[in-house]
Amino acid sequence: MNFNAYLNDLPIYEPGKDIEAVAKEYGVKEVIKLASNENALGTSLKVVETIKQNAHLAHLYPDDNMSELKEKLARKHEVKVSNLIIGAGSDQIIEFISHAKLNSKNAYLQCGISFAMYEIYAKHCQAKAYKTASKTHNLKELKELYAKHKEEIKLVYLCVPNNPLGECLDKDEIYEFISFCDEDCIVVLDCAYNDYAAFKDPKKKIEAKDLLAKFSNVLYLATFSKLYALGGLRLGYGIANEEIIKTLYKIRAPFNVTNLSLKAGLAALDDEDFVKKSLETNLSELKRYEDFAKKMQISYIDSYTNFITYTFDEKNSGDLCEKLLKKGIIIRNLQSYGMNAVRITIGTSKNNDRFFDEFAKIYKL
Amino acid sequence: MNFNAYLNDLPIYEPGKDIEAVAKEYGVKEVIKLASNENALGTSLKVVETIKQNAHLAHLYPDDNMSELKEKLARKHEVKVSNLIIGAGSDQIIEFISHAKLNSKNAYLQCGISFAMYEIYAKHCQAKAYKTASKTHNLKELKELYAKHKEEIKLVYLCVPNNPLGECLDKDEIYEFISFCDEDCIVVLDCAYNDYAAFKDPKKKIEAKDLLAKFSNVLYLATFSKLYALGGLRLGYGIANEEIIKTLYKIRAPFNVTNLSLKAGLAALDDEDFVKKSLETNLSELKRYEDFAKKMQISYIDSYTNFITYTFDEKNSGDLCEKLLKKGIIIRNLQSYGMNAVRITIGTSKNNDRFFDEFAKIYKL
Repeated sequence: MNFNAYLNDLPIYEPGKDIEAVAKEYGVKEVIKLASNENALGTSLKVVETIKQNAHLAHLYPDDNMSELKEKLARKHEVKVSNLIIGAGSDQIIEFISHAKLNSKNAYLQCGISFAMYEIYAKHCQAKAYKTASKTHNLKELKELYAKHKEEIKLVYLCVPNNPLGECLDKDEIYEFISFCDEDCIVVLDCAYNDYAAFKDPKKKIEAKDLLAKFSNVLYLATFSKLYALGGLRLGYGIANEEIIKTLYKIRAPFNVTNLSLKAGLAALDDEDFVKKSLETNLSELKRYEDFAKKMQISYIDSYTNFITYTFDEKNSGDLCEKLLKKGIIIRNLQSYGMNAVRITIGTSKNNDRFFDEFAKIYKL
Repeated sequence: MNFNAYLNDLPIYEPGKDIEAVAKEYGVKEVIKLASNENALGTSLKVVETIKQNAHLAHLYPDDNMSELKEKLARKHEVKVSNLIIGAGSDQIIEFISHAKLNSKNAYLQCGISFAMYEIYAKHCQAKAYKTASKTHNLKELKELYAKHKEEIKLVYLCVPNNPLGECLDKDEIYEFISFCDEDCIVVLDCAYNDYAAFKDPKKKIEAKDLLAKFSNVLYLATFSKLYALGGLRLGYGIANEEIIKTLYKIRAPFNVTNLSLKAGLAALDDEDFVKKSLETNLSELKRYEDFAKKMQISYIDSYTNFITYTFDEKNSGDLCEKLLKKGIIIRNLQSYGMNAVRITIGTSKNNDRFFDEFAKIYKL
C-alpha cells in the first residue's frame, strides 16, 4: 500500500504512561503524576456541577456556532466574536495555522526547544524548521535567524512562557520582535501558560486586545487545559484579526469541540476564586521547588509556569525518572528533547512533599 | 496576508440553526430538531451516570493509549487492538485517510450525493473528486467510473447506508466492488448508520472482522454519534489492517478525544437494552414516515437509517423547511446538495406526530 511521501518523516506519538499503568507495572498503590502540567487543585467544583447538569445532552451535537462561549471570551479579552476561533485544545489552532501558512517551499522559526507540536504540524505541511542554537528564547538569535531566512519564514512561534523549559520573554521583547517581522509572516504567541507568568511578573503579561490594536500579523493562543483545569476536555482558542480567523475557519471541521467542553468552559471562566487560588498555590509551591533545587545544588530554569525544569550535569535524567517511577511518581524526562533534564509539574503541597522526599533519596544515591 | 492557495477552494462551514436560536427568532416555545440524526431516545441513562461519576476528572488529560475503549471495541468486533484507531467522530478518521492517500495528483470516488466531508477533506489535499451521475450508490456506474480513472483514484467512499439519502448497498455488492478495485486503492466503508440497516435487512450487515479477513485495502468506519447517542461527545473509530492503522496514527494529534468521551463510549457499549430499544423504535417510527409519505403522495427514498429523505416535484424544499421552522420544527433542506428534497430525522413518536400534523397542513397549502 502506498501512502503520501510526507508521512515518512512523521513519527507516531508515543503516549506517556498513565497513573493506572504505572500502578500496575510497579505495584505502587498511590501513584502521583507530575508530568502533564495539569492543574494541581483538580477540577473546579463549578465545572463538575455544570458537567453533571448537562450530561443528559450528550446525544445532541454541539452548537457549532459556539456562540455562548465565544461571546464570553470576547468580553473577557475585549475583542469581537469575529476575532475568535475555538479548538480542541490550542493544539488544534496550531494545526490550523500551520496548514494555512506552511508548505513544502517555506519554513517556520522557533527557539531551540519548545512545544513539540509546532514541528510536527510543520512536518504535516512539509515545511522546514529553523531553530535557534539557544534552547530558550533568545531575542537576538531569533532576530538574526529570521533576518537570514526572511524570504522563507512565514510563521514564528513564541511560546511565552515556554513549554517545556519555563522561561518567558518580556512583553516589550515580544513586541520588538513582532515589529521586526514582515507583515506576511504570522507570529504565533502561544500563551498557554501566560496567566502564570503574568501573575509572577506583570512584565510578562500579554493582552490580546492590545496585540490586535498594534499588529495585523499576530495569532494569540490560549488554553483551558492548565489554569482553567480542563485538560481532559480539549478546549483552547485563538484570537487574531478577522482575516486570519476567517482563514482558520476554512480548515476547521464542524463540531471540533464537544458540547460538554463548551459548557465546562463557560463554568471554568466563571469560577474566579478557583483561578485565583490556583495561581497563588502554584506560585508558593513553585518557590519550594526552587528552594529544594538550591538546597540540593541542582540547576533549574527560572519558571513562569506551573512546572519547573531541573537540569543535570552528572546524573542521568532517564535514570532519575525511572527510579522515581518505581516509587510511584511520574515526571517528564526531557531526553527526547536532547536535554539531560526533567520537567516537573508543580503539584499539591502534599504531592510536592512526597516528590522532595523521594527525589532527595534517589538523587543522593 | 498570503495564505496557501488551496484554501481558495475551501468553503467555510455554515452551522445550521440550533434549537435556542430558532426558538428566539420565531418566538416558538417548544422547538424540535429533526435535522441532525441524533438518537431520538436521548442519552442512555448509563452514559449519563458515567459522565456524572467522571466529571471531577475533567482536569486530567485523557489516557492517550485509549486502552480501555480500544480493548472493548476489539472484543465487540473480534479484531485486534492494533486494527483500531479512535477519532473525534468518524469524521476525523475520514480526515486522516484523506491526508494519508490523497494529493494534488490523484482523486477519490463517491456516488453522486453522499456525506459532505468526503469532498471537503479531499479539497484539503487538493485531490480531484469523481462522482457518479446517479445520486445514490449505483454499483455499475461506480465500477465504470473507477475503471475509467483507476490510475488516479486512490480512495473510494461507500456510505452504507448513505447519508443524506438513506439507501444502502447489499453486502454482496460491496464485496464485489472492493474485489474490483486495485490493492493500492483504499475503499472506505462508512458504516455510521450500518446498525440501522442491518437491523432492517440482514443483507446490509457489514462486519469488520470479515472484511479484514478478505481484503487488505478496506477501512471500516463506525461512530458513537447515532445509535450510541453520543453526537455531542465526538467519538468514532476506524478498523483496518495494521499497516493502514499505523499510518493513520502518524496523522493523529495526541489527545484527539476527550476523557469524558472515552468513558461515555464504554458505558454506551454496555447499555445493550438502550441500543435494542433505539433500533426497534426507529424502525417502527420510520414505517410511519413511509406511510405518511404514501398517504400524502410524496416520493421518498427507501431508508436504512434513522432518517428519511422526501423528494419533491412541484413544492420547493426550502419553502417547506422555512414554513416548518416558523412552527418550531427543524429539518434538513437538501437544496445545498442540489436536490429539491428534505432529510428528516426519525424522532420520538410524539415529535413525529407533531411533524406529520404540521407538515400535512403546510404541504396542502
